[in-house]
Amino acid sequence: MKHVHPNETKREIGMKITDIKSAVIGEQIVLRVCTDKGIDGFSEMEKKDYIIPLIPFFADVIKDCDPTNVASVVRRMRRLGGFKPWGKIMSAIEMAVWDIAGKEAGLPVYKLLGGKVRDKVRIYNGGVVNPNPPHPIADTPEKVGENILALSEMPEGLTIVKMGIGFHGHFHEKNFDLTDYTYNAYPDPNDKLTPFKIGGLLTEKGLDLYVDYISKVKSVIKDRVGLALDCGPGMTAIDALRLAKAVEPLNVLWLEDTIAGDFTPYTLAHIYRDITMQTTTPIHTGEQLYLRENCRELIETRAINVIGPDPADVGGIAELKWIAEYADLHGIMMAPHGGGDGIFGMAALTHVCSTMPDNYIAYEFPPGRPSWYYDIVEGLPDQFLRDGHVQVWDKPGLGVEFNINKASKYLDPEDRNFFLK
Amino acid sequence: MKHVHPNETKREIGMKITDIKSAVIGEQIVLRVCTDKGIDGFSEMEKKDYIIPLIPFFADVIKDCDPTNVASVVRRMRRLGGFKPWGKIMSAIEMAVWDIAGKEAGLPVYKLLGGKVRDKVRIYNGGVVNPNPPHPIADTPEKVGENILALSEMPEGLTIVKMGIGFHGHFHEKNFDLTDYTYNAYPDPNDKLTPFKIGGLLTEKGLDLYVDYISKVKSVIKDRVGLALDCGPGMTAIDALRLAKAVEPLNVLWLEDTIAGDFTPYTLAHIYRDITMQTTTPIHTGEQLYLRENCRELIETRAINVIGPDPADVGGIAELKWIAEYADLHGIMMAPHGGGDGIFGMAALTHVCSTMPDNYIAYEFPPGRPSWYYDIVEGLPDQFLRDGHVQVWDKPGLGVEFNINKASKYLDPEDRNFFLK
Repeated sequence: MKHVHPNETKREIGMKITDIKSAVIGEQIVLRVCTDKGIDGFSEMEKKDYIIPLIPFFADVIKDCDPTNVASVVRRMRRLGGFKPWGKIMSAIEMAVWDIAGKEAGLPVYKLLGGKVRDKVRIYNGGVVNPNPPHPIADTPEKVGENILALSEMPEGLTIVKMGIGFHGHFHEKNFDLTDYTYNAYPDPNDKLTPFKIGGLLTEKGLDLYVDYISKVKSVIKDRVGLALDCGPGMTAIDALRLAKAVEPLNVLWLEDTIAGDFTPYTLAHIYRDITMQTTTPIHTGEQLYLRENCRELIETRAINVIGPDPADVGGIAELKWIAEYADLHGIMMAPHGGGDGIFGMAALTHVCSTMPDNYIAYEFPPGRPSWYYDIVEGLPDQFLRDGHVQVWDKPGLGVEFNINKASKYLDPEDRNFFLK
Repeated sequence: MKHVHPNETKREIGMKITDIKSAVIGEQIVLRVCTDKGIDGFSEMEKKDYIIPLIPFFADVIKDCDPTNVASVVRRMRRLGGFKPWGKIMSAIEMAVWDIAGKEAGLPVYKLLGGKVRDKVRIYNGGVVNPNPPHPIADTPEKVGENILALSEMPEGLTIVKMGIGFHGHFHEKNFDLTDYTYNAYPDPNDKLTPFKIGGLLTEKGLDLYVDYISKVKSVIKDRVGLALDCGPGMTAIDALRLAKAVEPLNVLWLEDTIAGDFTPYTLAHIYRDITMQTTTPIHTGEQLYLRENCRELIETRAINVIGPDPADVGGIAELKWIAEYADLHGIMMAPHGGGDGIFGMAALTHVCSTMPDNYIAYEFPPGRPSWYYDIVEGLPDQFLRDGHVQVWDKPGLGVEFNINKASKYLDPEDRNFFLK
């Protein structure tokens, strides 16, 4: 008896990529990879205006590739990216190409990545937001703690919440007079792009303040929800170590990006290792990473405890899957970044994270941005996010599709042909 | 007696960057950094069409910075670049800003980099081309050797010539049937961008062929001119080592980019170290490097003997100067890449290389492309390139200027305002 693939006669031979289109929809850049067989793949990127003009270059690089052999498409592109954000287009293309490969095979992407080992995938807050928090203005750590508890008690059932502290985001701007809390942070108020991108050695008062703030948040949330801390970048190594040791009794899930990370085009693995070796608080970094090669030192020297590449920056989901197994081999946990990756990115993260080894913790949940995205995208099961997990679903490809009628209404005039043949 | 800077009363206070303009002139992208005091800085980049749309983003990032404090401009930009080519705009801006700082101070840039330690700077061929080679079609290694000798005997007096071999450029395509010389090189003939970007394990015949080719070239040129070899990337580590050991008796200057390098967004320092530790043939890499942080492993593990960052990719000339001293501390030599950097890049390379420690060998000479560039740029001394060296000259800033009347004729219509106020 001859073994025959059940769909064999339906398979397309020699599919080719014909074009990549892009459109800004809401707060996302959407990619559409088109083929000569009428099967398209979609993915999303965080909207960075300066990225958009690079898309035709990458489109030209992969034109005529067969998207059902994803690796052959990646082979063309991987040397052309770089640390965040320069690997973003290549990474988004990879995910859209997996969408095509899955649709063509009639299989959900996770089957093409080796198969899932879990039916639901833990996430942390990211874009899960409480529309009615108990404290719309949370100007004390206790109020922040109560907001976190309320967030975890929503129907989504979050089990992990990440909070900004230190030089992350606008924590300092919102809370303190910076000059009193650091010795050598010289913010650049005229830097329109990122005036908050500062750092420096903390004063005793500054470090005490962080520890006190975290302690008070924990005193409210106790062990009812896991607390992760996004800390920078911008801390000195010694402050990162002091902070890590000071919060050891609080059992936080991880300290992320203390000394390097977001938009840092390198890893500082050697300095991370010094910190990690001296504390039981898990040390996390990695959202800026591009390709396994740039993870090597972090992983092989066990410089961190948790690594968090973003599939939309690291080179795609197959690269992220490989890195997850590589990290596992070295005793490092996985908590992928993803907050800006949109609903298609959320689908891609769900597929790839369902295939990761037991070192998987949770991914950062990307929301539809704005919330009307959930009206223009179809395929998500009802209550797909509950009990702190995304339930893995089984449609072919990434398993989500635009409702073209509804989505077209949000296209800018210059993108009006985006969904057309 | 009060010490007064002789130009003190002429100094501008609080100069600000107002705009960055760009234009394609010939085969180069030219940047013009404009200030509110009427002093402009210029620099050039290799023409990559996909880079051009990113310029306004970087312009916006540094607007209002004071270009006479170059470090404050760099501080805004350095986290926003990446491995080649994603650090190119940031790097070119840095050089143009040095041009402004030098002009404003009335000093050649090398004085602002700490001062020169040599009056002439050795270069290697790069864009120095023989218009009438003895063998216009050099289809044997002996003819290639005779062409190299003739090149070195031109008035420029080259003392070092670099030649492509192995997987570099079109060496294979031009010379051999690839399939007979490697076991696992699967070129991608449909890759329009770089069909030659292949690699793989060499057959015995393949390796013998390289060694034989290099030996025959050397048998012609003997020790009359130094021979450097650009080898990839694409070689396996073991072939790189075999090649390095096989050519040890030939005393070549270096083997460049065997396993990684050009357009490789990582360094493979650990593999380079294994090769370097086992041979007396100097091992070279680095044209893709962005920032000192990404040089660290190469330098601190002494993974190579010669490092070759390009000022137009690594983050500019101050970054390159710092790396030169860092390399010197670790016994590593400097041979900067630069072939695509244009005349302004050549000027910048001359300034920075005149300040480097004794580990300096030579930089890759960037030509005016096309050759009419030498008619539209002023400031170069007569015979500035002779005896294999560029003679350091003393005009303020980078020491070269466009002749606006002549240069304007080469502007595309859409760039016609490039030189206007």
